[in-house]
Amino acid sequence: MLKGADDILVLTHKNPDGDAVGSALAVCAALRSIGKRCNAAWTGPLSAPFRILTDSYEEMEMEPRFILAVDLASQSLLPEDTKQWTGKIDLCIDHHASNTGYAACSVVNGRSSSCAEMIMDLLPVLGAEYTGYIGECIYVGLSTDTGCFKYSNTNADSHINASRLALRGVDIARINDLFFEQKTRGRIEIERLALDGMEFTFGGRICIITVTREMMEAAGCIESDIEDLAGIPKSIMGVECGITLKEQRDGSFRISVRTKTLDASAICRAFGGGGHIRAAGCECTGTPFDIKVALISVIRSEMDRQK
Amino acid sequence: MLKGADDILVLTHKNPDGDAVGSALAVCAALRSIGKRCNAAWTGPLSAPFRILTDSYEEMEMEPRFILAVDLASQSLLPEDTKQWTGKIDLCIDHHASNTGYAACSVVNGRSSSCAEMIMDLLPVLGAEYTGYIGECIYVGLSTDTGCFKYSNTNADSHINASRLALRGVDIARINDLFFEQKTRGRIEIERLALDGMEFTFGGRICIITVTREMMEAAGCIESDIEDLAGIPKSIMGVECGITLKEQRDGSFRISVRTKTLDASAICRAFGGGGHIRAAGCECTGTPFDIKVALISVIRSEMDRQK
Repeated sequence: MLKGADDILVLTHKNPDGDAVGSALAVCAALRSIGKRCNAAWTGPLSAPFRILTDSYEEMEMEPRFILAVDLASQSLLPEDTKQWTGKIDLCIDHHASNTGYAACSVVNGRSSSCAEMIMDLLPVLGAEYTGYIGECIYVGLSTDTGCFKYSNTNADSHINASRLALRGVDIARINDLFFEQKTRGRIEIERLALDGMEFTFGGRICIITVTREMMEAAGCIESDIEDLAGIPKSIMGVECGITLKEQRDGSFRISVRTKTLDASAICRAFGGGGHIRAAGCECTGTPFDIKVALISVIRSEMDRQK
Repeated sequence: MLKGADDILVLTHKNPDGDAVGSALAVCAALRSIGKRCNAAWTGPLSAPFRILTDSYEEMEMEPRFILAVDLASQSLLPEDTKQWTGKIDLCIDHHASNTGYAACSVVNGRSSSCAEMIMDLLPVLGAEYTGYIGECIYVGLSTDTGCFKYSNTNADSHINASRLALRGVDIARINDLFFEQKTRGRIEIERLALDGMEFTFGGRICIITVTREMMEAAGCIESDIEDLAGIPKSIMGVECGITLKEQRDGSFRISVRTKTLDASAICRAFGGGGHIRAAGCECTGTPFDIKVALISVIRSEMDRQK
C-alpha cells in the first residue's frame, strides 16, 4: 500500500510520547528516502530531549492523499488539529492489542514492545535506506516504550532490535542519558512535592499522587517536567494500582493509571479513556477529591471483578 | 585452569552488588554442574530481591585449594572475612579496566558491561550445563551493572546477551520488577529526605546528598533502602559530579562519586578508594562538612587537571 501511495500524512496520538514521535518521524524519513512526499503530524509540547529528533524535521508542501496512523490505538486519541482525518485513515501500524480497527487496513502486533520496532521491520520491505537519523527515531521509540528495557513488555526482540541499532552506530548512551538520566531541577523539586502529598488507601493497595498547577509553580517546573511521574506510585511495594492526577491549564485533570494485575485500560474506559492493560489514561473534570472518589469506586469494582 | 582445579572458592568485592553476587553464584553453579566442589563467598547484607539468587544456595563441605575472584578490581576491596586470601588468588575474572592484576592469572575485559557476561561466555568453555538459575544470576549481574541498559557501559553485546537470556526463558520482567521497579516505603521516604537536604556548589556543577543514621531512622528505612541513591545527584541537569555521603554504623561515611566527564576513580583514589571512571567510591571519617570540603578540593583539582 505504501509503495503505491504518495502525499502521505502520518498521524499519531495526542500527548505524544517517544514511541509516537519516534515512529512517525522514522516512517516519514523512510518514505521520503524512497521518493515519497510525506509529512508527520504530531501535536506537542515535547520535552527538550525530543529536539534531537524534531530539530531536523522540515514540513513539505503537499496535499495529503494517503493517511497513515502510527502508535494510535483509537481515533478518539487523535489530537484536535488532526481530528478532521477521523474515518479517513487508510493504513494503521500499531502495537496496541486494544487497537479498535478504525483504519481501512491495519497492521497490529500486540507483541511488539514498541511501534517503532514495527517501523524498523518495515524499512527493508519499503526498500528504504537505513540512516543514523532513522535509527535514532526507532531507538527513542523502543527505549521509551519499554522504560529503557525495564517494563514487562520488554522481550527478546526488544533487546535484539536494540543491539541491531547499537551495532549500526546509534548513540544509545546519549539517548539514554537525555531521556532517562537527566532531570531538571524543576523535575526533582516536583517529585519532592508529589511525594510529600502521596496518599494511600485500601491498605496501601492504591496510591495516589496529585500535581496541581500551584505545585508546579512552586517547583518552578514546566509541563514536560511532570511526564512519567505516574511511574512513582506504582513502584512502591504493596501498591497494586498507582494513580496520578495532573491538573491541566483549563482546571481539568489528566489521570494516569498504572497497575500490577488489574486492567488499567478497563478502569480508564469508564471515564472515556483507554490504553494498555497495565498503563492507561483518561481525563476528568471536578475537584481532585471527587475525581479520586470516582476512580477508587471503579477500581474497587475492577478488583471485585478480578477475584 | 578451572577444569584442572577443584575445591574452588569464589570471592568477590565487599558491599556486593548484583554483578558481584550474580557472577559468583553463576560461576559456582556452573563449576558444581561439571562436578567440582565449589563455594561462593560474599559478605552481605543484601537487599530483599537478592533472595531469588541466594535462597537456593547451599554451602559445601570443602577446604579451598583454588581461589577464584570475580568482579574484584583490587584485593583491597575484599571484605574482612575473606581478606585472608590476599596474595593467594589463583585466577581473576573481571570487567574493571582498572584491575590491579593481583591474581596469578587474570582475565580482564574492560569492554564487557558486566562480569556476569564474562561468566556467560565461560559456560560453553567449561562444558557447564546452562540452567534457568544460572541465567537468572547472569541477568541480575548484567542488568544491575548497566542500570537496566541505561548506563553508558551498555553496548550491543549487553543487548545481545540479554536477548539470549530472554530466549532461554529467564523471567526478565520479574527480575526487572524486583530490582528496578519496586521500592519500599522506607526507600521512598529516604529519597524525600535526601532531596530536602540536597546541596549544590560550583555553580550547580557539584551536587551532594548526605544520608545520616538519624535520617534513616526517621524514614524507617534499612541499609538496602539506600542503595543507588548515588544516582540521584548525578541525574540532575548541569551537575558534573554527584556525591553521596552515607553514614555507616561506626560513624564513618561511605562516599559514592558519580561523574559525567571527570575521572571518579581518580577522585576516590585520593581517599584510598577506587572503581570505574564514572562511578567510584571511598570511605572517610570526620564530620560531613570536613569530608565535603576535602572532596570538593580534590574534585576541583581534577577539574583543573582536565581543562
